[in-house]
Amino acid sequence: MAELVRNKQVILKDFVSGFPKETDMYMTESSIELKVPKGSNGVLLKNLYLSCDPYMRPRMTYIEGSYVESFKPGLPISGYGVAKVLDSENPEFSKGDLVWGMTGWEEYSLITAPYLFKIQHTDVPLSYYTGILASGAVGQLVGQFAKLLGCYVVGSAGSKDKVDLLKNKFGFDEAFNYKEEADLNAALKRYFPEGIDVYFENVGGKTLDAVLPNMKIRGRIAACGMISQYNLDKPEGVHNLMYLVSKRLRMEGFIVLDHYHLYPKFLEMIIPHIKEGKLVYVEDMAEGLESAPAALIGLFSGQNVGKQVVAVAPE
Amino acid sequence: MAELVRNKQVILKDFVSGFPKETDMYMTESSIELKVPKGSNGVLLKNLYLSCDPYMRPRMTYIEGSYVESFKPGLPISGYGVAKVLDSENPEFSKGDLVWGMTGWEEYSLITAPYLFKIQHTDVPLSYYTGILASGAVGQLVGQFAKLLGCYVVGSAGSKDKVDLLKNKFGFDEAFNYKEEADLNAALKRYFPEGIDVYFENVGGKTLDAVLPNMKIRGRIAACGMISQYNLDKPEGVHNLMYLVSKRLRMEGFIVLDHYHLYPKFLEMIIPHIKEGKLVYVEDMAEGLESAPAALIGLFSGQNVGKQVVAVAPE
Repeated sequence: MAELVRNKQVILKDFVSGFPKETDMYMTESSIELKVPKGSNGVLLKNLYLSCDPYMRPRMTYIEGSYVESFKPGLPISGYGVAKVLDSENPEFSKGDLVWGMTGWEEYSLITAPYLFKIQHTDVPLSYYTGILASGAVGQLVGQFAKLLGCYVVGSAGSKDKVDLLKNKFGFDEAFNYKEEADLNAALKRYFPEGIDVYFENVGGKTLDAVLPNMKIRGRIAACGMISQYNLDKPEGVHNLMYLVSKRLRMEGFIVLDHYHLYPKFLEMIIPHIKEGKLVYVEDMAEGLESAPAALIGLFSGQNVGKQVVAVAPE
Repeated sequence: MAELVRNKQVILKDFVSGFPKETDMYMTESSIELKVPKGSNGVLLKNLYLSCDPYMRPRMTYIEGSYVESFKPGLPISGYGVAKVLDSENPEFSKGDLVWGMTGWEEYSLITAPYLFKIQHTDVPLSYYTGILASGAVGQLVGQFAKLLGCYVVGSAGSKDKVDLLKNKFGFDEAFNYKEEADLNAALKRYFPEGIDVYFENVGGKTLDAVLPNMKIRGRIAACGMISQYNLDKPEGVHNLMYLVSKRLRMEGFIVLDHYHLYPKFLEMIIPHIKEGKLVYVEDMAEGLESAPAALIGLFSGQNVGKQVVAVAPE
């Protein structure tokens, strides 16, 4: 019989409505055997980094028919993370492998149906596999990718520090603090007197409503998420959809899960950019599993500057 | 000097807010010389049929930056129609030509910048060039086109008679009266237990909100118009846009003006279908220019059954 070790976990107390609070989660300690049951196809992970992402908010509520499942009250939260394989009964993974993918908010996770990717490039920080190299930090990267493609890029952020970051560190052409703009429509007109070609939708609600009349004819909206809506019991109404017709706009949603076959190509593109310093990547690192609930909640009030990561254990 | 004739006209009294009324327009009579000024590039039309279309409602309000212009208070309403050329200084049109395109709501129109198409096929009713062969009657046709392509088609209409028409005359698989459905979402689930592949958007508002959760993953929404919104001072809010992301939907607007290069191909396809009786086309014909204001207003309460046309003069 293998060694039993203590395993700290972050548990969802119950389904959440409205703005989530740290107390919607609690820490607990169970024990775990650091061994995968024979023939189970599972892997046993030691979690190193956990990713805090906006899409986790809807998972705190009971949802049906979505691309993700609800968290289960009484069980650990799950999400993207970076981990080391301690034991494996899965032919694709071996002891010692570094992996990223879906894991639990706990020190050790027994994953029976692994949704994990082996980390090949270890010459960049491992935590990057919770963000720039995997699931998140979308806003800061989209703008930089657009700059690399020669676009004029304007960012919208929620504090003066973030606006400075977008302009001075990420090289966006312009950025504004949406909290200080009494009239978002006027702000967009100021930065896009001739209209917007492409809007990357991560906000929804009032921002989308202000963007629609400012789009150019045949403009495109890539719909990635709508963070402004996730804490509302009923989403806000968007009033300006008739501009989709009058301006012949295309608005299309997408989910990273559908595009993982392109992941090797993505790495080929991005790793040189990281090494050559052509992409700036900012992380907001919280230390220790105990800091995870606050880090996650902070996303929704914009506490984090850069990609929010939780460091669970030293590499 | 050419003959002066009396010219009855339908005039927009003033910009309209809310639900339009017949009294937002009035009839007047001016006089017109049935001759185009030399060198003017214009044509002089005798109007035969006028088309009543939902997109005309926004034109009764002051609008900016749209694909259509507002009507001008004090001047005749304009819209699609079928007409005979009485005189022409335009090299593309000759006396005696039958044309369809933009004309005025009056007996005779002097058009100085013609946006007109010559009618080649006169072996179908001329009034069809206000509808099936040109600008309108979209709902009844889209469903029939989809049936010709082998789709399962469900229509939504606002009266029992229209529902019968959709099912029994147009051959839709199913149809329902949206005014009798307390829960549109449930109605859609009943007809589409596995979800909707393609939604043709002509309604907007609550209908769109009910459709979004019922779309299949990667479903498509062709956005043609949003008639439910045109009489509102502020459009309704649409709350379920997050399904664009979770279901990876594409919603795209379009306008017929962008696609007129395909018109010859369209005629090639549709004229045989009409002659062979494979397409059913229903018109609601109002007699005389005096009936035009009521016919137009009737669109917005669903008075018309079939494409609403006004017959102005005998062919």
